[in-house]
Amino acid sequence: MKQIIKRPLILITNDDGDMANGISVLTRLMCELGDVIVMAPDGARSGQSNAITVTQPVRYRLLEKTEGLTRYSCTGTPTDCVKLALNEILERKPDLLVSGINHGSNSAINVIYSGTMGAVLEGCENGITSIGFSLCDHSYNADFSIFEPYILKITKTVLEQGLPYGICLNVNAPIGTIKGVRITRQCEGHWTKEFAKRIDPAGRSYFWLTGHFENHEPDAQNTDEWALANGYISVVPTKIDLTAYDMLETIENWNL
Amino acid sequence: MKQIIKRPLILITNDDGDMANGISVLTRLMCELGDVIVMAPDGARSGQSNAITVTQPVRYRLLEKTEGLTRYSCTGTPTDCVKLALNEILERKPDLLVSGINHGSNSAINVIYSGTMGAVLEGCENGITSIGFSLCDHSYNADFSIFEPYILKITKTVLEQGLPYGICLNVNAPIGTIKGVRITRQCEGHWTKEFAKRIDPAGRSYFWLTGHFENHEPDAQNTDEWALANGYISVVPTKIDLTAYDMLETIENWNL
Repeated sequence: MKQIIKRPLILITNDDGDMANGISVLTRLMCELGDVIVMAPDGARSGQSNAITVTQPVRYRLLEKTEGLTRYSCTGTPTDCVKLALNEILERKPDLLVSGINHGSNSAINVIYSGTMGAVLEGCENGITSIGFSLCDHSYNADFSIFEPYILKITKTVLEQGLPYGICLNVNAPIGTIKGVRITRQCEGHWTKEFAKRIDPAGRSYFWLTGHFENHEPDAQNTDEWALANGYISVVPTKIDLTAYDMLETIENWNL
Repeated sequence: MKQIIKRPLILITNDDGDMANGISVLTRLMCELGDVIVMAPDGARSGQSNAITVTQPVRYRLLEKTEGLTRYSCTGTPTDCVKLALNEILERKPDLLVSGINHGSNSAINVIYSGTMGAVLEGCENGITSIGFSLCDHSYNADFSIFEPYILKITKTVLEQGLPYGICLNVNAPIGTIKGVRITRQCEGHWTKEFAKRIDPAGRSYFWLTGHFENHEPDAQNTDEWALANGYISVVPTKIDLTAYDMLETIENWNL
């Protein structure tokens, strides 16, 4: 796992689009650490999970090229961005993929909906050390400044230590003062009351996604939700292998 | 986990859309087992993963209502379909969610891209016993007949045995003769050569997603890929908790 890289090649993407403040901050930080290629969606792609664009083609275009930094935008999803960068842009596999900084939490079950984390899983599948960074603040002008030194420290440490194949990191930060970093697990919970119903001028119903997160284990102190609620940055080591190994024997015994 | 249900309430969705043959077959089969509600996308949503629609509203409409079967279509993703059905349609939580039958494989890493499995993970998050069925045949008129008795047996067994919270099943069938059922794990692998480049009449490049799956462990006999390549149905117990528990201690020791 240990690796020493002089001037790492860093791929950046996000799901809030290439104009978001979060990716600007992340790009500035990563330029301190290595040579940076940005391939970000050309607009908001929140909640795009690991979606890939299959019914239409995708395109990309160059936005900026300076010493150590090249930025592209792409018409597709965050996962498309990673695939395009790896297959069509980069001359070698990057040493690191970072995604974000997301405007909004990707803790608990949100990891499965997140376009930010979709891109991270995509990097992970391709054998790239990959980290997703999110701040629990949806606002356009969210303040990432308190999070910044932690992002640098976490990234430097991951570059030094490496991660095994199939493992990536889901890093979320609370709003306001940060007490420190907790290594946590994905909190169990689900969303309820998920739609706001509206009626259009023709009298037909339509539904906006909204909702309330119900934490199934509010007292557990080793979850990402607990860390965030108590002022800590949460780091969840996250897998691309979804197999429930504990269940293999039980289901074997069903004699299907 | 054990549960006995007289006439189960079954929610069906897919990612190939409400007109696909796969969902018609699955609907016919499930009508043998219970009362069926279908909420399927109004067109193809392949590769939509757990994507949710957040930048525009979604709508649904009634397609058909007969004794024991009600069918709706929805403008959103497979995950939106499940959310809409649970929040706006169903008077009680269904006893079972089945998704598919997908036209095409959802084995190995494809589980993270699959809209079929996105819907299954969504059901699972909501505490519903959930199964995804896929046949390794992308064609419109794929022949599901050999798979059918296995779908019935697997579904009946799961209804009898139940599944713990957070665990669902990813069931894939090979084309042609079926030798039996194997309980497997998600095969490690990744996609390569993922784009076909084309040039439009204005001389600009665009890219169609395609690719070749590279199996990292072709000799392992306990994977879904091995089962399918050797004529077996693959059943992978699948988790919504992506935490890499084995890594918690290692990362603790980084002193982030």
